[in-house]
Amino acid sequence: MAYSDRLRCEELKDRLMSADAAAALIDSGMTVAVSGFTPAGCPKAVPLALAEQVRSGKRKLRLTLLSGASTGEELDNAWAECGIIARRAPYMTSKALRAAVNGGAEEEIAYTDVHLGEFAQNARCGFNGKIDVALIEAAAITEEGDIVPTTALGCSQTWIDLAERVIVELNETQPAALEGFHDVFRVGDPPRREPIPLTAPGQRIGRPYLSCPKEKIAAVVVCACEEKPRPFPPADAVSEAIARNIVRFLLLEKDSGRLSADRVPLQSGVGAVANAVLIGLKDSPLEHLSFYSEVMQDGILDLIDAGKADFASATSLSLSRAGLERLFADIERYRGKLVLRDSEISNSAEVIRRLGVIAMNTAVEADLYGNVNSSQMNGTTVYNGIGGSGDYARSALISIFMTPSVAKGGKISCIVPMVTHVDHSEHDVDVLVTEQGWADLRGLSPKERARLIIENCAHPDYRAALRAYFDEACAATHGAQTPHILSESFRFHENLAREGSMRRETKGETLC
Amino acid sequence: MAYSDRLRCEELKDRLMSADAAAALIDSGMTVAVSGFTPAGCPKAVPLALAEQVRSGKRKLRLTLLSGASTGEELDNAWAECGIIARRAPYMTSKALRAAVNGGAEEEIAYTDVHLGEFAQNARCGFNGKIDVALIEAAAITEEGDIVPTTALGCSQTWIDLAERVIVELNETQPAALEGFHDVFRVGDPPRREPIPLTAPGQRIGRPYLSCPKEKIAAVVVCACEEKPRPFPPADAVSEAIARNIVRFLLLEKDSGRLSADRVPLQSGVGAVANAVLIGLKDSPLEHLSFYSEVMQDGILDLIDAGKADFASATSLSLSRAGLERLFADIERYRGKLVLRDSEISNSAEVIRRLGVIAMNTAVEADLYGNVNSSQMNGTTVYNGIGGSGDYARSALISIFMTPSVAKGGKISCIVPMVTHVDHSEHDVDVLVTEQGWADLRGLSPKERARLIIENCAHPDYRAALRAYFDEACAATHGAQTPHILSESFRFHENLAREGSMRRETKGETLC
Repeated sequence: MAYSDRLRCEELKDRLMSADAAAALIDSGMTVAVSGFTPAGCPKAVPLALAEQVRSGKRKLRLTLLSGASTGEELDNAWAECGIIARRAPYMTSKALRAAVNGGAEEEIAYTDVHLGEFAQNARCGFNGKIDVALIEAAAITEEGDIVPTTALGCSQTWIDLAERVIVELNETQPAALEGFHDVFRVGDPPRREPIPLTAPGQRIGRPYLSCPKEKIAAVVVCACEEKPRPFPPADAVSEAIARNIVRFLLLEKDSGRLSADRVPLQSGVGAVANAVLIGLKDSPLEHLSFYSEVMQDGILDLIDAGKADFASATSLSLSRAGLERLFADIERYRGKLVLRDSEISNSAEVIRRLGVIAMNTAVEADLYGNVNSSQMNGTTVYNGIGGSGDYARSALISIFMTPSVAKGGKISCIVPMVTHVDHSEHDVDVLVTEQGWADLRGLSPKERARLIIENCAHPDYRAALRAYFDEACAATHGAQTPHILSESFRFHENLAREGSMRRETKGETLC
Repeated sequence: MAYSDRLRCEELKDRLMSADAAAALIDSGMTVAVSGFTPAGCPKAVPLALAEQVRSGKRKLRLTLLSGASTGEELDNAWAECGIIARRAPYMTSKALRAAVNGGAEEEIAYTDVHLGEFAQNARCGFNGKIDVALIEAAAITEEGDIVPTTALGCSQTWIDLAERVIVELNETQPAALEGFHDVFRVGDPPRREPIPLTAPGQRIGRPYLSCPKEKIAAVVVCACEEKPRPFPPADAVSEAIARNIVRFLLLEKDSGRLSADRVPLQSGVGAVANAVLIGLKDSPLEHLSFYSEVMQDGILDLIDAGKADFASATSLSLSRAGLERLFADIERYRGKLVLRDSEISNSAEVIRRLGVIAMNTAVEADLYGNVNSSQMNGTTVYNGIGGSGDYARSALISIFMTPSVAKGGKISCIVPMVTHVDHSEHDVDVLVTEQGWADLRGLSPKERARLIIENCAHPDYRAALRAYFDEACAATHGAQTPHILSESFRFHENLAREGSMRRETKGETLC
């Protein structure tokens, strides 16, 4: 059996086994809950071994998979491809899984898309039934049997607490120096629980290890599976323009004397636009930034290196390969400036509200009144899921949503009369930003919002069509609070389905 | 000038003036922020005096009105009727105001519908501009100049803190014995604030008075305007059936060993169904109930009287006249069992999550996937607003929404293919209840939810039509995550607009 000096607990050495043997502990009908978050810190060796057992025809099984958020291709993708997953929550980014969730695979997957900050509590309160196996990636196990997590925390402590048996994957490619980066805190459950004592992004309130009774550990699997980070999102002119608008808004907010980005923490999502915002912040006059976020992208390291950011708190190091290498090459320098928390804490409504976070999340589409769809294409096909956006948007001091004004080379307007699915209602969207500009919606009525969104955020090619819809709807409803013509509200989307574009050119103007 | 022994502070006696004189302190263009909440505890004499000044042609003015929630007819209705209100937030229930907001009056009102738990903070952070006048109803002013609030707290402390000038309405019809019922707590603002130390519904964390520097008090107006409480919501068979289903669900939850209603606090909204639930709880085997809610209805007094409820926390005594009389006749007995808090605390995401509240709110309509519209008729005409429902639904341990399965004598199905407006997304709705039954949506995929909602919650007359839509949508989208046919998604509503009913009878079956 593979041995590792990362396994410092003598008592657990008799639990060492191969990935193949550990995978055999997982049976059909079970609920398996795993470490990791988008997709850092997920187990790899045991999932791949199980997939291989199924692929080779040795076994056939269907199970429920729970996690912190999305997992790596070794897990979501590999398991979805060979039909292992019957039920999945709370988030995913895998192509194979997405297909099976949306009816494009032989075996359908029932996917429940949940606010990430609520998921651990829901599980503890029995919403997802019994957890059979927790499968946790670790960088080490200490002399006392404490587990050193890797590049994400997610719901790992809750999975360990709830699971009947725990399988630990000791991944030797994860730096041993990750020890000390984490802050694991058990929130407890109602009816009696104390406040979460966190009052600043950099504060530590827990312990750096996952706690697990040794008798619960059924297997320790030593592996050397390299993390496969997301590719670095390429910047483009549109992302940069959105970023510039966000920085302008933040500077204006500071000039107004209101609470600004150099006084309260920022939350920033994942992807090209989010990373462009981080780059934009580096070149701005804002100083002493801090982050209270669910993921850290490369741009946060840049801000720390440039002396612009003092501290970043998240649940996951969602860095590119280059970003991970940079962090690990100089890990001691970053030690006092980064912390990884349970997703229940990073995404806690309580803490986000208390700190006054300025939240920046991306929209798939937004409508005239500021409602945001962040998950479902055409209101039907889920892309990833709502993730943590609702945790931040609802409780943030200022909730910013951003999107390019158009997609698919201009064939899709991301500002539409009515969104086809609402993840964030008008009540949770304070500022809407595109590369065209921004609409500060705070304190405005729906009709005032519509005018601002059309003129400031919509692409010029679609403004006439949006104005036309809005004017027609105002007339048809005699100026109701939220003017709509229900039979016409999805006309942009119907054009797209019929003609491949939301645009319809009429007399040199785009009308839809 | 009217004198009152309720004004115990010598230093403030020179501020006594008539309602008419105090109303003259309010000018056009100002922002006026008032005490009260749905509609308890609102100022009455000064608003009526100002309305009279306008109605009689002496003055003409337009202003912004902010409050805790809806106000009484002396304020929202009277001011809307004579065109005083240009801008209104965060909630309303007034008929005249509703008309002006929805384009049915000469002078339009810009209405912003805001989560009530966020509103005080938004105002402190400058989202609503400068507050000129705070107009606060009081039961007394103490020797030290502290203000004893009346039947609601709402945002009163924040209004006093932000306003340039404060007008106090000393209402002699409000019982002096209200002194001590309130718990006023200033949350503070980011970036540095401490946890809200509340860990049980009955705990006191603040002081029983509103604090105000004496030099800020511009006027004290003595009045004797009777509170005009909401009429007691009549119970009907449908409300009682919904209530029975909710109680059954709660008992099942208790039997399952999960956290149940006798261990965590309940939140219950306003209206006939909410009150029927309270009555249903009285006749249930559940004991030691507690409430962490925004309003108290008569049913809570019944539960306390019956020894079924130990404690109730809210921001407003939204009682009927009989309920108020019962409370005031025996006020010492209720003293240790009720507390009135700032709406920022009663509706605090932090506290609601910590306590593990079971939230029960009403829907206008719900769709196949569990999305809820609680504010906009046909997606266009706002009825009241979102109120505090979003504060509770998002942070609750279990979020229940309830609605009759049909309205208008069966012409409207409250379960529709797609809601015309989303206030609460599928992610915030755990259980949907109608008089037909309930659908426990926890852990289910959208398609699983749809089947359950149709069979358990929809009215039998509409089930075939809903099944037909769902099947068609599944076929058209090849089983996508959230099957919809956008061009058909509002067909129930289009039928209603065209034919006066969502129903279309075809071969003895209702198809829509």
